[in-house]
This record gives sequence, structure tokens and C-alpha cells, in this order.
Amino acid sequence: MKTQICIIGGGPSGLLLSQLLHLKGIDNVLLEKHTRDYVLARIRAGVLEHGFARLMREAGCGERMDREGEVHDGVFISHDGRLDRIDLHKYSGGSSVIVYGQTEVTRDLYDARDRMNGKVIHEADDVAPHDLGSDKPYVTYNKGGASHRVDCEYIIGADGFHGVSRKSIPAGVLREYERVYPFGWLGVLSQTKPVSPELIYAKHKNGFALCSLRSQVLSRYYIQVPLTDTVENWSDDAFWAELKNRLPADVAARLQTGPSIEKSIAPLRSYVAEPMRYGRLFLAGDAAHIFPPTGARGLNSAASDIYYLYHAMVDHYHKRDDAGLDGYSEKALARVWKAQRFSWWMTTMLHRFPDNSPYEDRLQDTELAYLLSSDAAKSAMAENYVGLPF
Amino acid sequence: MKTQICIIGGGPSGLLLSQLLHLKGIDNVLLEKHTRDYVLARIRAGVLEHGFARLMREAGCGERMDREGEVHDGVFISHDGRLDRIDLHKYSGGSSVIVYGQTEVTRDLYDARDRMNGKVIHEADDVAPHDLGSDKPYVTYNKGGASHRVDCEYIIGADGFHGVSRKSIPAGVLREYERVYPFGWLGVLSQTKPVSPELIYAKHKNGFALCSLRSQVLSRYYIQVPLTDTVENWSDDAFWAELKNRLPADVAARLQTGPSIEKSIAPLRSYVAEPMRYGRLFLAGDAAHIFPPTGARGLNSAASDIYYLYHAMVDHYHKRDDAGLDGYSEKALARVWKAQRFSWWMTTMLHRFPDNSPYEDRLQDTELAYLLSSDAAKSAMAENYVGLPF
Repeated sequence: MKTQICIIGGGPSGLLLSQLLHLKGIDNVLLEKHTRDYVLARIRAGVLEHGFARLMREAGCGERMDREGEVHDGVFISHDGRLDRIDLHKYSGGSSVIVYGQTEVTRDLYDARDRMNGKVIHEADDVAPHDLGSDKPYVTYNKGGASHRVDCEYIIGADGFHGVSRKSIPAGVLREYERVYPFGWLGVLSQTKPVSPELIYAKHKNGFALCSLRSQVLSRYYIQVPLTDTVENWSDDAFWAELKNRLPADVAARLQTGPSIEKSIAPLRSYVAEPMRYGRLFLAGDAAHIFPPTGARGLNSAASDIYYLYHAMVDHYHKRDDAGLDGYSEKALARVWKAQRFSWWMTTMLHRFPDNSPYEDRLQDTELAYLLSSDAAKSAMAENYVGLPF
Repeated sequence: MKTQICIIGGGPSGLLLSQLLHLKGIDNVLLEKHTRDYVLARIRAGVLEHGFARLMREAGCGERMDREGEVHDGVFISHDGRLDRIDLHKYSGGSSVIVYGQTEVTRDLYDARDRMNGKVIHEADDVAPHDLGSDKPYVTYNKGGASHRVDCEYIIGADGFHGVSRKSIPAGVLREYERVYPFGWLGVLSQTKPVSPELIYAKHKNGFALCSLRSQVLSRYYIQVPLTDTVENWSDDAFWAELKNRLPADVAARLQTGPSIEKSIAPLRSYVAEPMRYGRLFLAGDAAHIFPPTGARGLNSAASDIYYLYHAMVDHYHKRDDAGLDGYSEKALARVWKAQRFSWWMTTMLHRFPDNSPYEDRLQDTELAYLLSSDAAKSAMAENYVGLPF
């Protein structure tokens, strides 16, 4: 098979890029290891930056998002038994976020690719990129007992942290940066009405909690737990009790509980690999960087990589201008690091750090007190939360 | 001797309060351990918040400050061989700072106290506050071979970190918070024209540097050094060479050097004691909190304590309203902690931390990159630098 661009990974990043390029007449093939059902069963993020939403609309995939997604103009922060609100719309100068599950984004993108007869190949096993340093790279994979080869001009690695793309870059090329947090998030998905129309980020002496949602009938709640905990340690009852404990009394009193339809513990870590290009291979999203979930930077940073790649490819193919491709890694990383900074800041401000000194604990309390007292600090938070400009 | 308020410590905080209270007809006695010449020989801070400047004017001591002090509307930050400017005036919504040495502030306050025949007693040895828990506290001291006693209604402890005031609070009452930084500042004072009309905060891979000044003929420069260094390790030549090394080439080229007239190494630490009141004793300034010098919060935080104490005493004596006295500790500490946060933030952003992980180093670079890219972040910095509202 021959194409201009071979995209590895059928998550939202790969699909979005595939769709955007196709609309600009740039031929591409997308290889995904798993079945579509498997991809769609993954429970992931749910807060989309306004810039991401614009990109979805540009890809012709914004209709259901705009109909069913919820525009959130603010978030709540609870602390010391009270609830404060940050008006994101006001403090960002008119922007907001859309709450719309990653699963739904992915579904819409698959539907769009289907409608355009996009070349999306599922259950592609043993995917391997080759000759990245040449101008004739190719990707091999196995499917249905046969081996296949895709000859292409560029390869996009959008196959996540554990994917083959980053691993196919020779040793010594990448610099890796990592921070592991000393706790995880225990998350519960439940078919209950969300306790709050907008997200509540809760700082509590027992640890962080988050009241999030996927829709007005699907709630997503989290509590900070030690890394030594397992899902088996936490019955639904114990989860709900501890979540209520970490919320202001009036919020806890109106929290609707119900059976968990998904329950899992995710560790919190930050990771960045640099550069994001090696020869004809470009990394995007989780393949190059991981975010702690606080502040919702993971999916949104993937989208900003796609924004840069999309424009770089259009400039390359339509204008014979390679500045976008040559500058991709630097440009994408500048925004990735700012998002890393923001998620580190929010994580650090709101979680309990068991090894903090008393001084550090007071500094943490002060960070929040300052945020809530300062228009400038609220503006800084808001512009990051709704997404810095591309 | 009998008075309404006995102030321990003849630094700028004690003097300023003494002067302000006297102007409101509140009788006070100030006890200082050292001679006036000793106090005036101390080389200290030089950047005054606009709120501090207002307080000096209210005390009738602003004339020379306004004539000789320099209004600074911005600061420079140098990094990666270039110089960026933060427009404090613009981003704080019209405020600025005044560069005027602490020595000059102190001198003006002494002169004002002299003009009003303020009761300022120097060389008061073995000062000791007594009966703090009663409504008849008193202070004893020795001078000229005789022992003296000041009966008063309130005692102000403005005698610095090593002073007797905080130490006279019974064990177990105070909670203490501390952070020690793994480096110090080597400072040089020289009779040279400052390299820049406004301060330059320099981030460099070898460590932080600061180009400050006391006037247009008196420069104050600093470089970050390991705590193991001593002044003897650093000849003037070695200091100037390393300072130049940490500045952009064009700035280094125009740096005027000369013999040091003072050279010293100060460790960087943060310290807060809570509460700031015990019975009839009120702590102010360094007696209750220490700041790393980055961001110039030390003297300015002392001034904000004085602002709160001054108004609390006026309310008490003129309106029989004790809300100010009762709320002093909480109110002062809220602002102190925000200043701690700011000085921690500036220190952390600009210094080299030898034990940082590569991830932390990149986060630090990003903090500065974000600051320089964001109006909101510049506003947050500016409002802290010129001084948060009292």
C-alpha cells in the first residue's frame, strides 16, 4: 500500500489528524492495533479546551459535541468546608471548556472517517516503522495471518505511551523527563446525576477529590489514594463515604450515589520525551508526553500537537513550505511544557503530599488562598485551563 | 518610666511605628540594644513597596525618600543571554516601587523621632519583657550601670529574628515554619554607577545573580554561591568575573567594576512563627518572619505588620475598638504568607538548585518562559512585587 502519511494509533489524536488531512486532500492510512470496540470502551478524559473544540468543528466532527457536550464557564474549588468558583469565562477573556467524553470524541471521529471512506485499519498487529532516517520510510504490520507494508512519506506516532513509535527511535536520541507523584486517583463512574453542574476540585486534609461528569446522567468522581491501595480495598460504600467526607457538608448532602459501573486506580505521573521528531517520524500526544489528570491537559495537549502537525503538513504539501515540519518539535514542546507546568501547579496545590514539611503545607494553603484572592492569579489559571493559544 | 506602648527594637519597623503612634498622640518608648551608628551601618534591603512609601509619608518621613529615592516602574529578568523587562507599572495597574536604602529609611525615621523628641533609648542592655499575660506588662533593661523599668499597656517586639521578644513567649505557644535553601547570596557594595537603571534578576546555569543599586553612584550586586563558600574564597576580581559571566554579554560589557566597600555572604531562608501575638506582646517584622531576599519581601512585610499594628492601636486608643488588635495576628499572617509564597516562587524560578531532577529543571525554565509569555502571569508577579493591598 502507498500513501502520503501513515498514522500509527487510532485514538482521538490519530483519528483527528487523519480526518483533517483527508479534508485537505492529503492521503493517509491509519493503523490501530485493537478493535474499534476496544478503543471505544476506554474511559478517559472529558474536558475539552475551546481550541480543541474548534479543531473538531474544522474536522467536520463538531455537530454532536456542540449539541450534547456541555459548555462549562467555570469550575469550583472546595476547601475548608466551603466552595469557591473560578469564572473561567470571565477570567480567560471569554473562553470556556466543553465537557464531552473522550469516548464520544473518538466515536464521532470514527463516524466521520467512515463517511469519508477513510483508510482506518484495525487489529493491525506487530506494527513497525522502518527507515525513519530515509526519505522513503515505511510501516509493516500483520493482519489476518498476512504481512502488509505501507510505503509513505511521513509517519505519525500517535500510539500512546506504550506504543511502538517512540520505542522505534534509536537509543540515545531522546531525552526523557519524568516526575512520579506519591499517590493515585481512585475513579468511579456511575449512572447518577452529577452533584454539581460544573466540576468541583476539592482540597481536603485527607487528600484531593474531584467531582466530574460525562453528562447530566453520568458522573465521574475521583479521590486521591495511596499508591499501595487497590480497587479491592475500596467498596462502593467506602468510596462514597470518603468522597462525601472530602466535600463541603452541603455538597456531600446532595451527592447522589449509586453502583459503580467502572472503578480503577490510576497513578499520577508527568513525562516528556524530547525531541518529538526523528527523521520522518513525528510523535504526538501520549506517545511523547504524559500528564497527571489534574487540570485536564492530557487529551488537550495531544490536540495541540495535532494542530501543529496538521498545519505543518498542509504547508508542506500545499505550499512546499517545511518551516512547520522543521519547527514542529520545538513549537509543540513549548506548549507541552507550559501544560506540564500547569498540571504540576494544580496537582501540587490541591493534593495532600504525605512528605511535605509543615512549611510546604502552609505554602500550599497560601497558593490556594492567593489564587482565590487575586484577579491576576485567576486569569493565569483560567487561560491555562481553557487552553493557552496554539 | 510609664508609657502606653513599649517598642523593643530600633530598626525601621520599630521607629516607623513609634513615629506613627506619636503623631496620633499615643505615647511610646523605644528601646534599642545598639548605638544609633551601629544600626545605621547595617547594609540591608533597598526596594520599598508603594504602600510602605505611603506609610513613610503618613509618618512625615517621606520627603527625602521622594526626593532622592528612585521610582522603578519595572524590573529586568535576564536568561539565555537576553534581557526581558516586566513593566511593573503597567501590569500592577499603576503602582511601582521606590529604590531607597533601608539605611536611609532608618536615618530619616531617627531624624523625625529626634525632631519630635521621641523617647528612643539606645544601648539598652538585657531588655526583658515581663507579665505578658497580664494587663500590666512591663519591660526591664540595663543602661549605664543602672537597671530601668518601663511600665506599659502593650509591648511591640520589633527586635529582629535574634531579639528577645519572640524568645520571651513560653515554649509551646508558637508554631514555627521554616525552609532553608541550599545556597547563599554573596553580595558586594561598590561605589560604581549601576549597570542598569532598574534591577536585573539573572537566571544562569551557574546560578542566580542580581544587579541592584542604592543610588546612581552606589551599586549592589549579588551572585548565588554554595553555602560552603566564604567571603575569603571570593576576591573582588573573581566576583566581578563571575557576575559578568551570569549576565548577557552586552550587559556584562558595560558593567562598571570597582573595589568592594562591603562584601558578605547571606544564607537564604524562609521562616514564620505563629501566632504573632502573645497576651500584651505583638511581634512585627523579622521577629516573626524571615524571607529570602529574592523579591524584596523582608522589609516590606515588616512595614505591613506595622500598618496593621498602627491602625489597631489607633482604633484601640481612639475608638475603644479592639477588633484590630484581636485580628492582628491573623490579618498580618495572611499577608506574610502571601509574601512568603511570592519570595519562594521568585527564588525557585531563578536560582540553580543543585539537587533538582532534569524534570524540575525544565519546569523551572518553563515557569520563566510562561511568565514572559503571559499578561496574566506578569500581572500576578507585578501585584506581588509592588506589594499586595494591606
